[in-house]
Amino acid sequence: MPTVSLALGTHSYDVHVSNGALDSAGFFSTRARLGGRAALITDTNVYPQYGERVKRSLEDADYAVSVHVVDAGEKSKSLNVMNQVVEEMVSAGHDRTSFVVALGGGVVGDLAGFIASVYYRGIPYVQIPTSVMAQVDSSVGGKTALNLPSGKNLIGSFHQPRFVVADPTALLSLPERVLREGMAEMVKHAAIRRPKMLVILRQLADELPIGFSLSNIERLPSLIAENIEIKARIVEKDERETTGTRAFLNFGHTLGHGIEASVSYGDLLHGEVVSLGIRAALYLSRKLIGLPVHDEAEVLQTLSSLKLPLQLPRKVDPGTVLAHAMTDKKFRGGKIRFVLLKRLGEPVLSDAVTIDDLKEALSVLGTAPRIRKLH
Amino acid sequence: MPTVSLALGTHSYDVHVSNGALDSAGFFSTRARLGGRAALITDTNVYPQYGERVKRSLEDADYAVSVHVVDAGEKSKSLNVMNQVVEEMVSAGHDRTSFVVALGGGVVGDLAGFIASVYYRGIPYVQIPTSVMAQVDSSVGGKTALNLPSGKNLIGSFHQPRFVVADPTALLSLPERVLREGMAEMVKHAAIRRPKMLVILRQLADELPIGFSLSNIERLPSLIAENIEIKARIVEKDERETTGTRAFLNFGHTLGHGIEASVSYGDLLHGEVVSLGIRAALYLSRKLIGLPVHDEAEVLQTLSSLKLPLQLPRKVDPGTVLAHAMTDKKFRGGKIRFVLLKRLGEPVLSDAVTIDDLKEALSVLGTAPRIRKLH
Repeated sequence: MPTVSLALGTHSYDVHVSNGALDSAGFFSTRARLGGRAALITDTNVYPQYGERVKRSLEDADYAVSVHVVDAGEKSKSLNVMNQVVEEMVSAGHDRTSFVVALGGGVVGDLAGFIASVYYRGIPYVQIPTSVMAQVDSSVGGKTALNLPSGKNLIGSFHQPRFVVADPTALLSLPERVLREGMAEMVKHAAIRRPKMLVILRQLADELPIGFSLSNIERLPSLIAENIEIKARIVEKDERETTGTRAFLNFGHTLGHGIEASVSYGDLLHGEVVSLGIRAALYLSRKLIGLPVHDEAEVLQTLSSLKLPLQLPRKVDPGTVLAHAMTDKKFRGGKIRFVLLKRLGEPVLSDAVTIDDLKEALSVLGTAPRIRKLH
Repeated sequence: MPTVSLALGTHSYDVHVSNGALDSAGFFSTRARLGGRAALITDTNVYPQYGERVKRSLEDADYAVSVHVVDAGEKSKSLNVMNQVVEEMVSAGHDRTSFVVALGGGVVGDLAGFIASVYYRGIPYVQIPTSVMAQVDSSVGGKTALNLPSGKNLIGSFHQPRFVVADPTALLSLPERVLREGMAEMVKHAAIRRPKMLVILRQLADELPIGFSLSNIERLPSLIAENIEIKARIVEKDERETTGTRAFLNFGHTLGHGIEASVSYGDLLHGEVVSLGIRAALYLSRKLIGLPVHDEAEVLQTLSSLKLPLQLPRKVDPGTVLAHAMTDKKFRGGKIRFVLLKRLGEPVLSDAVTIDDLKEALSVLGTAPRIRKLH
């Protein structure tokens, strides 16, 4: 079973990646010496599919388990839902010896992780991610967050899980569009750290019309582990996003978040706005620091073959995107911190991107991309 | 100026205690290399008295300051008030380079500290406590918390301040009853670590009918610093309350919290229930581990001379107190963790206190204490 270890001093941990690993949640909890009771936090989409299996695995390992099901979707990353889950946990008798199990995609991971970081001033938690994006990105690294009316992820914490269990078979039931959007974070990882992975992603893209299936599922654990490895090495260098290294993971995300905030919920999925943000960041990288045309083309080609969007929908107003992007957390003390690529695998943090540059990139995003067939 | 340093690795800090130190908030912020903007969080009682002075001190040190005034009282330690302050901070343009200034008593310190710990996943904050209890206890040690309908301090964090400024002159304006209740935490410190301080507290008690005044204010900085010193040494040994040492600070608090939760807000102040809790803990210490009668008498005498309550008001139902005490955070995995005194200055953590013992202590609390005059 591929295991990726994160070396983070007293809160180091392992990410276990294997088909069927969902059923080992209890085993890994015992091995991590988690004691007492588990609060299983999940959502209305995931619970019917995998909730009982994880609960049984925990109970078989002698844990008392309470289940807390929130509505699927971004709206559950709120103070209200947190309040409700915490009250349920108190009623279920959880104290500071309990732990939280986050079973679901990015929303459940962020919500459950945040609850664990503040319940009784902090209890342990484990991540069992069930979407591509959560498996290769959000479940690893300890970032938790809630949204507030004035902005996404405005409050949150750094709280590392005790372990992560990524089971690729949980992806088999995902709708094709959700599967594809998750691949955008893999393209990001490839662009900033592992250019060779772009070839693998294009090969996989050809099989995606039928989604992942039992016929290609055995290829997933190593691909997912490779992506987690990339993120893990970056997080180890900059756990709390203070040195700048971790900011590389925001490649494509600054304008991406601006676009995400400018559309109605569900119009564009997170990975889809990241795809748009990556195109904009590639354009600026070429213009400002000479990213080779061939490098830009290879990433665009990969996003295109994964059928991820590369052109801003006409109804999205660039001015609104810009205004939202300006309130992003990546704006420190009024300055823009933008991740550019010098070449594939070589990200740099730049202060040189101006508001006019962003406007120009957004205007380019409104036009159809020219995709060159590479192979 | 007395300065107490806390050695806590990368988040070590100093507590500055001196008359008039309120006006040095800006100076200390610059020295701690805090940058950018300050969000001054305070309440409707404290702002009219000290708000403008602290604001001016920060502005004189070139900080841009926004002011956030919450209602005075425990009800402000809520998710709703936090939500409101965070939205105000976003509107005021605060980002991850900003810091929070907590100006007020325990409620403001807990609320502002919690907000700082989660705003943009954590920004720095400083404590400027203006009550006795906040100066000698809650502003030091990094515990933050909010209340939920089902319990006090149910969510929170460990987030150490960058520095603490305790200005004893801020105590001059406190009502006598609030002054007295704050002394209960000093009695606690004396009982668990510095028995000799009990004599000083009894001497001070004789002067208290006129409150602190300009005539005795010069004695306060060293007394307050001595109390902070006691707490600092304990926090250094057990920053996150995992080894048990920090639990000693809960002496008198387990039943105290139960009583606090059983009465209407304002009927009994925090220090008043701690006084009752200390009497119960002394009784159990004598009964279960042989605390000498003379030691018990000296603490009771001190509480009595400070005119702190020692008898449970008749309208408080012992059964309700017990039920509330059972949901206290100090109950780990269903077991009671109770702080007893072997003798003055020697606390021990005990698992041997039974529910029946607690009932007995509560019944004793319903009777008038016999106070022996010591000197």
